[in-house]
Amino acid sequence: MERRRLYEGALRGVARRFGFREAATPMFEEAELFVLRSGENILNELYSFKDKGGRDMALRPEMTAPAIRMFVNGMSNDPKPIKLFYFGQCFRYERPQSGRYREFFQFGAEIIGSAAPETDAEAIAAAAAMIRELGLKEYRIRIGHIGVLRQAISDAGIPPESQARVLQLLDKKRLDEAREAMAAAGADPDAAEAAVRLACTVGGREVLDAVGGGAREYLGAVLDVLDAMGVGGVEVDLGVVRGLDYYTGMVFEAEAPALGAEKQICGGGSYSLSELFGGEKVFSTGFAIGFDRILLALEREGAPFSPAGIDAYVVCASDDAKAKAFEIVAALRAGGASADVDTMGRKMAKALRHADAVRARFAVIVGPKELEEGSATVRDMATGEQSLVKIGDLAAAVRRAG
Amino acid sequence: MERRRLYEGALRGVARRFGFREAATPMFEEAELFVLRSGENILNELYSFKDKGGRDMALRPEMTAPAIRMFVNGMSNDPKPIKLFYFGQCFRYERPQSGRYREFFQFGAEIIGSAAPETDAEAIAAAAAMIRELGLKEYRIRIGHIGVLRQAISDAGIPPESQARVLQLLDKKRLDEAREAMAAAGADPDAAEAAVRLACTVGGREVLDAVGGGAREYLGAVLDVLDAMGVGGVEVDLGVVRGLDYYTGMVFEAEAPALGAEKQICGGGSYSLSELFGGEKVFSTGFAIGFDRILLALEREGAPFSPAGIDAYVVCASDDAKAKAFEIVAALRAGGASADVDTMGRKMAKALRHADAVRARFAVIVGPKELEEGSATVRDMATGEQSLVKIGDLAAAVRRAG
Repeated sequence: MERRRLYEGALRGVARRFGFREAATPMFEEAELFVLRSGENILNELYSFKDKGGRDMALRPEMTAPAIRMFVNGMSNDPKPIKLFYFGQCFRYERPQSGRYREFFQFGAEIIGSAAPETDAEAIAAAAAMIRELGLKEYRIRIGHIGVLRQAISDAGIPPESQARVLQLLDKKRLDEAREAMAAAGADPDAAEAAVRLACTVGGREVLDAVGGGAREYLGAVLDVLDAMGVGGVEVDLGVVRGLDYYTGMVFEAEAPALGAEKQICGGGSYSLSELFGGEKVFSTGFAIGFDRILLALEREGAPFSPAGIDAYVVCASDDAKAKAFEIVAALRAGGASADVDTMGRKMAKALRHADAVRARFAVIVGPKELEEGSATVRDMATGEQSLVKIGDLAAAVRRAG
Repeated sequence: MERRRLYEGALRGVARRFGFREAATPMFEEAELFVLRSGENILNELYSFKDKGGRDMALRPEMTAPAIRMFVNGMSNDPKPIKLFYFGQCFRYERPQSGRYREFFQFGAEIIGSAAPETDAEAIAAAAAMIRELGLKEYRIRIGHIGVLRQAISDAGIPPESQARVLQLLDKKRLDEAREAMAAAGADPDAAEAAVRLACTVGGREVLDAVGGGAREYLGAVLDVLDAMGVGGVEVDLGVVRGLDYYTGMVFEAEAPALGAEKQICGGGSYSLSELFGGEKVFSTGFAIGFDRILLALEREGAPFSPAGIDAYVVCASDDAKAKAFEIVAALRAGGASADVDTMGRKMAKALRHADAVRARFAVIVGPKELEEGSATVRDMATGEQSLVKIGDLAAAVRRAG
């Protein structure tokens, strides 16, 4: 949990620097909300239940739908764009595996009410800054445009009812199956092959030349802004599709090679969702970071973490110093140090062992001799060095700098 | 949410200074766990459901049982005492009312594995420090001892099966009903009246004189340690019983008069719970703070809160400065400032209004003239004062001190 809070704080810091404000939504909502966003299939993965009032509820599997529901319910008149972030637990009933749990932490952000390439660039820049801030060494960000592939398979003559399936296969790079599905749907073979080629088009800005019309211009503008912001390590991948129908244009993903097959750590794009929840159509761009997954990637890369421990552990050298020990621990805490005190009546050697166990940087030893001089002995637990410190100076002596 | 995070941070800071380490338990557990701690009645208040594997689960209504379950499962050999804290959402299906929600935030702490009065004093001192740190002006902490009243009603001849009911009535100060219940249970009238008197005994250390034996000595020792630690505002109230059977000795509550009838903001005591979950009997002391309740009390007391806003909002004075504006916002963020930038292509006056809407302290205006000199105009949004600042100095100029 301490490691989680450290990284959570890092993400929160970047979000604030980017002008996002934190929001929270309930841990469960009406199951219908998640079906509206993700389709009926989501029901198989939901923790759903009837509440005592007979309503069909579900623990949230993600937080974009709740955030947009909140926007429609109470924030639709706020000045745009609205920049929100949120962090919390989500739930999916699926087979647990490495970095994929039934209860998992998700960090997400939404920029609501703007359809400009600058907005998309802001979202990508924020995601990139977060990944960097966490200290992940190796990652790739790939940007695509859902319109490009949609147009290509439309051009190939795939009827609307078959498009989602074909897009999914292309997204997963199951190309032979995609070819078969397109053939079965009566696609023109050359146009189908062109769609497959597009789905495999990855590279720098130059690959946009393969794209026609609006999408080329739009992604070019996104890349311009990312350049101006100095966001590197971004490539174009026209095969990025994302799973869901509600994406409208730019889509992006980030992955960490350290994770192997399940390497995706972040995904997002521009979308329109509010009209499904009874609001007006509002364009937004958002992304979510798989927090557990990225922590696993950091672990695999050997990112160092050691619990902070406490500044001082106060030990009595004799029974009659006990009240003084409690007075001193209170003074240390009031002075901003983290401090604990023996409450088990342990003898000196055992108490010092406990000081080690709770990772105290210093032991503060309170005995009759020291008290006569208004002092206590401060022992550096790493080196064993001891010095006599006036009681009024103790907090400053043990407190971690900063 | 920003207000919540501010206060959550304050609580977390105190917990760390007291040497507590953060833990987290799942959002739901087997419903049985909560029944074991709280009795069958809790089922009426639980959000319970069968998961897809047919198991009876419940959203957690509190976090002490999960914390002790976690201790029994995986921490029982750690050096004692173990000091844990946790913060998160809990759920109760009950009538929502002021400061009492179906999904609510709870902050709690446990000191596991020590039965000494010093440990109880540590827990009370931590709770008091947290309430003070939040800035609550008016609060009372009342300490009692569950053994005292239990002994008194036992002495009055109340059979064990009727004791819980009588204790509850005495706890709620429904004295006439308590008298009736004791009479119906065949109590000796004088001894019953003595129990009622005890339940109404409130005051300073001197009221302990009314108490016999171990409890007087024990609470005296707790008060000694609290005195040594300088914890004031604590009174003895022998009528504090708490709702639950598993408390073993000292019990305490804190209340905020600002809240009126529903004034309790914190409750705790020493208990033994691990043996119910298959572990050895281990004495612990813990407390929980009703986070929503205490926030409401702070609001009633008029505690000030204003959202932080951002340091700077970057505005383009002309279209050809756009790339530079994104470069500058990236530099501001890299320099530790919180900054946002117009992505809607707004004209100057509208952009400045948006800067106000997002509570920017400064607007950074980027135009061709300024750029020639490698500078930007920094406008103080409160005073309207403007000055020209070198681009390299912008972050330092707008960043909030500290």
